[in-house]
Amino acid sequence: MPGIYVHAVEGRTLDQKRALVKDITAAVVKHFGSPAKAVMVQIVESPKENKAKGGILFSER
Amino acid sequence: MPGIYVHAVEGRTLDQKRALVKDITAAVVKHFGSPAKAVMVQIVESPKENKAKGGILFSER
Amino acid sequence: MPGIYVHAVEGRTLDQKRALVKDITAAVVKHFGSPAKAVMVQIVESPKENKAKGGILFSER
Amino acid sequence: MPGIYVHAVEGRTLDQKRALVKDITAAVVKHFGSPAKAVMVQIVESPKENKAKGGILFSER
Amino acid sequence: MPGIYVHAVEGRTLDQKRALVKDITAAVVKHFGSPAKAVMVQIVESPKENKAKGGILFSER
Amino acid sequence: MPGIYVHAVEGRTLDQKRALVKDITAAVVKHFGSPAKAVMVQIVESPKENKAKGGILFSER
Repeated sequence: MPGIYVHAVEGRTLDQKRALVKDITAAVVKHFGSPAKAVMVQIVESPKENKAKGGILFSER
Repeated sequence: MPGIYVHAVEGRTLDQKRALVKDITAAVVKHFGSPAKAVMVQIVESPKENKAKGGILFSER
Repeated sequence: MPGIYVHAVEGRTLDQKRALVKDITAAVVKHFGSPAKAVMVQIVESPKENKAKGGILFSER
Repeated sequence: MPGIYVHAVEGRTLDQKRALVKDITAAVVKHFGSPAKAVMVQIVESPKENKAKGGILFSER
Repeated sequence: MPGIYVHAVEGRTLDQKRALVKDITAAVVKHFGSPAKAVMVQIVESPKENKAKGGILFSER
Repeated sequence: MPGIYVHAVEGRTLDQKRALVKDITAAVVKHFGSPAKAVMVQIVESPKENKAKGGILFSER
């Protein structure tokens, strides 16, 4: 019963999210042998002012 | 000083949240022996279009 | 399909863990209305040298 | 710079892990448009006595 | 490529967030030897009604 | 009562960990105004075969 959490900045479309969770779920089913219904994927989005790379917020890059 | 994170889809009421964190905290105090004031519970909610089971978003189930 | 993560230092017994996940699951079923089989609880343990309160590692408190 | 965390019980082989992170990374690159080098995947494994479904530890199922 | 997640209640200003991620990144670079560009920091904020200490929601303290 | 989680590959020394949690805690106290005793930092380490960048496990880079 794997739980997968994708931490990302806001701004992806519904189509992008739908496609991502579909493919990640398929990868877990294929490689870890979990039944699909046991795979949970959650996208944890943060606004750009809440995420940084190299110490610089994405809102200021 | 346990930190408990509850990942769930949006939509619970304040009453539901209040009751949940109260009972989870009591369980940690009872079984792990932590003082109540050291127990932190955070509910990390995502919109239904950000969470999937079986590869299908909750917004489309 | 809530996923609950309990972050704690190592050292609890199997009996403590069994009791904790049972009570947390019951709380989620009762207050959030999830079916029990959809509730996943994972205890993420770290050694005492990997966790700190007030800037002091638990291995040195 | 998405960070993906896969929470699972212990016991997968190196081959399973290698294949899983490869496919998850490819899915993030394809659907979220991230450069591959910016995609981080971490598998957070717990022993079976630290994870439960339906309130029952995996070590006792 | 460390990923740092700061779980906090909502309400900090942009200046506070900018300063925090800058100092956390510097600490990881200094002590863990990671290149700055490989350090990702994400602030996961929750409303006060989603976070509790001692079993009491921050919205009711 | 912020909870900070540092996800990293295994291999840092006790001195490195001690210094890191000290500086991260100081940054949270300084910029977010939390009392030191309310700041919890946990380092979630994974073996190199459980973490990947660019789809390649750290054990194979």
